Amino acid sequence: MRKAVCPGSFDPVTNGHLDVIARAAKAFDRLVVAVSAHPSNPSKKALFALEERVDLIKEVTAHLEGIEVITFKGLLSDLCRDVGADCVVKGIRAVSDFDYEMQMAQMNRRMGVETVFLPTSPEYSYLSSSLMKEVVTLGGDINGLVPPVVEVRLKEKLS
Amino acid sequence: MRKAVCPGSFDPVTNGHLDVIARAAKAFDRLVVAVSAHPSNPSKKALFALEERVDLIKEVTAHLEGIEVITFKGLLSDLCRDVGADCVVKGIRAVSDFDYEMQMAQMNRRMGVETVFLPTSPEYSYLSSSLMKEVVTLGGDINGLVPPVVEVRLKEKLS
Amino acid sequence: MRKAVCPGSFDPVTNGHLDVIARAAKAFDRLVVAVSAHPSNPSKKALFALEERVDLIKEVTAHLEGIEVITFKGLLSDLCRDVGADCVVKGIRAVSDFDYEMQMAQMNRRMGVETVFLPTSPEYSYLSSSLMKEVVTLGGDINGLVPPVVEVRLKEKLS
Amino acid sequence: MRKAVCPGSFDPVTNGHLDVIARAAKAFDRLVVAVSAHPSNPSKKALFALEERVDLIKEVTAHLEGIEVITFKGLLSDLCRDVGADCVVKGIRAVSDFDYEMQMAQMNRRMGVETVFLPTSPEYSYLSSSLMKEVVTLGGDINGLVPPVVEVRLKEKLS
Amino acid sequence: MRKAVCPGSFDPVTNGHLDVIARAAKAFDRLVVAVSAHPSNPSKKALFALEERVDLIKEVTAHLEGIEVITFKGLLSDLCRDVGADCVVKGIRAVSDFDYEMQMAQMNRRMGVETVFLPTSPEYSYLSSSLMKEVVTLGGDINGLVPPVVEVRLKEKLS
Amino acid sequence: MRKAVCPGSFDPVTNGHLDVIARAAKAFDRLVVAVSAHPSNPSKKALFALEERVDLIKEVTAHLEGIEVITFKGLLSDLCRDVGADCVVKGIRAVSDFDYEMQMAQMNRRMGVETVFLPTSPEYSYLSSSLMKEVVTLGGDINGLVPPVVEVRLKEKLS
Repeated sequence: MRKAVCPGSFDPVTNGHLDVIARAAKAFDRLVVAVSAHPSNPSKKALFALEERVDLIKEVTAHLEGIEVITFKGLLSDLCRDVGADCVVKGIRAVSDFDYEMQMAQMNRRMGVETVFLPTSPEYSYLSSSLMKEVVTLGGDINGLVPPVVEVRLKEKLS
Repeated sequence: MRKAVCPGSFDPVTNGHLDVIARAAKAFDRLVVAVSAHPSNPSKKALFALEERVDLIKEVTAHLEGIEVITFKGLLSDLCRDVGADCVVKGIRAVSDFDYEMQMAQMNRRMGVETVFLPTSPEYSYLSSSLMKEVVTLGGDINGLVPPVVEVRLKEKLS
Repeated sequence: MRKAVCPGSFDPVTNGHLDVIARAAKAFDRLVVAVSAHPSNPSKKALFALEERVDLIKEVTAHLEGIEVITFKGLLSDLCRDVGADCVVKGIRAVSDFDYEMQMAQMNRRMGVETVFLPTSPEYSYLSSSLMKEVVTLGGDINGLVPPVVEVRLKEKLS
Repeated sequence: MRKAVCPGSFDPVTNGHLDVIARAAKAFDRLVVAVSAHPSNPSKKALFALEERVDLIKEVTAHLEGIEVITFKGLLSDLCRDVGADCVVKGIRAVSDFDYEMQMAQMNRRMGVETVFLPTSPEYSYLSSSLMKEVVTLGGDINGLVPPVVEVRLKEKLS
Repeated sequence: MRKAVCPGSFDPVTNGHLDVIARAAKAFDRLVVAVSAHPSNPSKKALFALEERVDLIKEVTAHLEGIEVITFKGLLSDLCRDVGADCVVKGIRAVSDFDYEMQMAQMNRRMGVETVFLPTSPEYSYLSSSLMKEVVTLGGDINGLVPPVVEVRLKEKLS
Repeated sequence: MRKAVCPGSFDPVTNGHLDVIARAAKAFDRLVVAVSAHPSNPSKKALFALEERVDLIKEVTAHLEGIEVITFKGLLSDLCRDVGADCVVKGIRAVSDFDYEMQMAQMNRRMGVETVFLPTSPEYSYLSSSLMKEVVTLGGDINGLVPPVVEVRLKEKLS
């Protein structure tokens, strides 16, 4: 059985994340979506609490088979060993992602874990959780860019 | 009549900005230089107050035709609608600009506003407001890289 | 009146080209689509004759206002002067386009002609005339990626 | 059962290819290495005949489980359907690979086939079949960069 | 006599830094390793005190000829003049480094100091001081990525 | 004594080449400009004969100290050993150069020769020999982009 870990902050989950998760779920027998307790940028505080982020992902991936959503802190390589995953799977949108993710992949590989990249679908290539939060804060419309429940929750928190 | 918005922090305006503004002013009938009240990086505080930044741009673009300088907060797409602009115009210096600006352009396009990019002149390709502030703080010479009045004001603030 | 030149090989025109042409046609009062008699890569021979390429573009842009389709050889800067255009407009898809187009834009600017870039719509970001020809040659489906008349003509030529 | 196709020219196979093949073989239950009958650049003729390339890969992957080596011409998406593969797997070395492979991946995805990328190990990040041929032609040493049998065959052909 | 300055934060020195320092030491008659008192990112505080960073570099470069380790604040161009250096030498790992370092090099050149770039060895291309600190904080193994003494000190500080 | 090799096709030498040569000549005690007998792209034939290219470089670098101009075929690493050079020096203009030159530098390093990169001056960042030939062929002006003697010779050959 092939099992992969899809890590991220998911603060909150966007349709871009969901697209990568859905495609990874088809590429592997089981997919563990791992929500990081550490912000990728330590100077930024998360908008959604860790458990809220997990719950949102569970809700919007409920229709998909073979998905488990967990929280993690610590090393990705330790997590993969703990859950019995063969590899990490990450979406890649653009060159700036690529440079950073290559660095992480080489480091994780040295710690015993392979990374595979899935190219983000073109229509979601410009999405990020940060941009979604910024647009909602300024009163903009993100309909179609995040799942409906996420849109509602973002508006509650930021308006 | 073709009208465009040229947005930015302009903290403070450099000769690189001025080059893009002057060329955009020729490419359009009217150009609205829109000084953002929000820092692009929320963890950085602006050195120049919003009105100071506006005044400096007004002073150094006084010789150009068809330019208006305003402040804005909120969505760029709303601003374009409010001032009746057809598009956003941005200078592009290097690949790192390109990735970020493409993301912004795709998002703005979804909100109904087109973006056009102007390549920065090679001689200004390494300029940024941050670098100007850093060099002046350390006692370096920025003559020829910013308008003379900006050089004076930077030295007053940072020396 | 604002007039721009949109140059290219258009061998043949794709929906990506058409998207850039349509958006450029809105951004300018008049748009001159200039089909190059020189292949961009001299070791490649064009599949469609110059006049065929012009005719296809005329046919698929017939519904757009303010568009003229011409052929050109020689310098882009001379062409712009001859037709009275203020600038060149080019679509940009990805970083590899960007590097090349920046080089061309700086050279053309030195010869007196400004270039503006339009970001290609994400859904067309992976299209190119070469790829269309390759896919049709191998029997693949390009429905939705080129205008229907182009699809028919490509199949006639390559099947 | 998870099955993937790893396509390429492999003219000839390098240790960089072998590294990606070995890692892909672990990530999937079965891996089909598909040697293309079409050169990726039509103006270049292959040095090794198609069957030679297949034989070399078979020889140097003989110790790996679950690998099949075949030739193909035509669409990658058709091949995947024919062999019952879920996806395509490609090694990625640098930004220039990334731009091209993203374009191919988006096109293949539209034709029903997903692509996953494996980052090339840093020590092989500068290898290519072309560079190996060039170095041997000039009398240089490629020991450790290609399998020993490939080194012998390259010297026979190029010295 | 050829003298160069190799500037950086070195918080702390990694095997990637050491590789660049050793190669630069061979390329020049004398190499001044200049440890910056200013963090490159002002929102990050250094983990190691300035003098600790100097001492660690001195210790791990003790076997190399012609190396001097100093601290500096102020302009790199002033430093080069003060120590009589002909140029600055910097390691480059990836495209994201390249864009930033090009900007710095062009600015420093304008202030009278040339920059030369050394490509980082592939096996260290994914290392950074930040990543080393992050991995140790999370309990990961960095053996072989930093000098042994640095590994010990990082564990003391972060565990 | 520090000696470097600056390799290239120089078909013909541009002001961008000259800028890198002049700066490299200052950075090293002796600089060997090595004109390659092999075109970098085998499908392109050189416009200027090998000896013509050497003579032009000699003529336009006559005012510089410590420069030798030679032809070479074979491996760059063998050449460096033959002339007693410590390293290769290359100008870098943009990201697309960087990717290719990094690959070459890593290969050459493995064969015992270090490469250092000099950033091209911004005002020459868009120049290439190919572009100069193309512009002259089309009747354009390259005054200031190549040395006057090269301009004359290009016009003789291409008009």
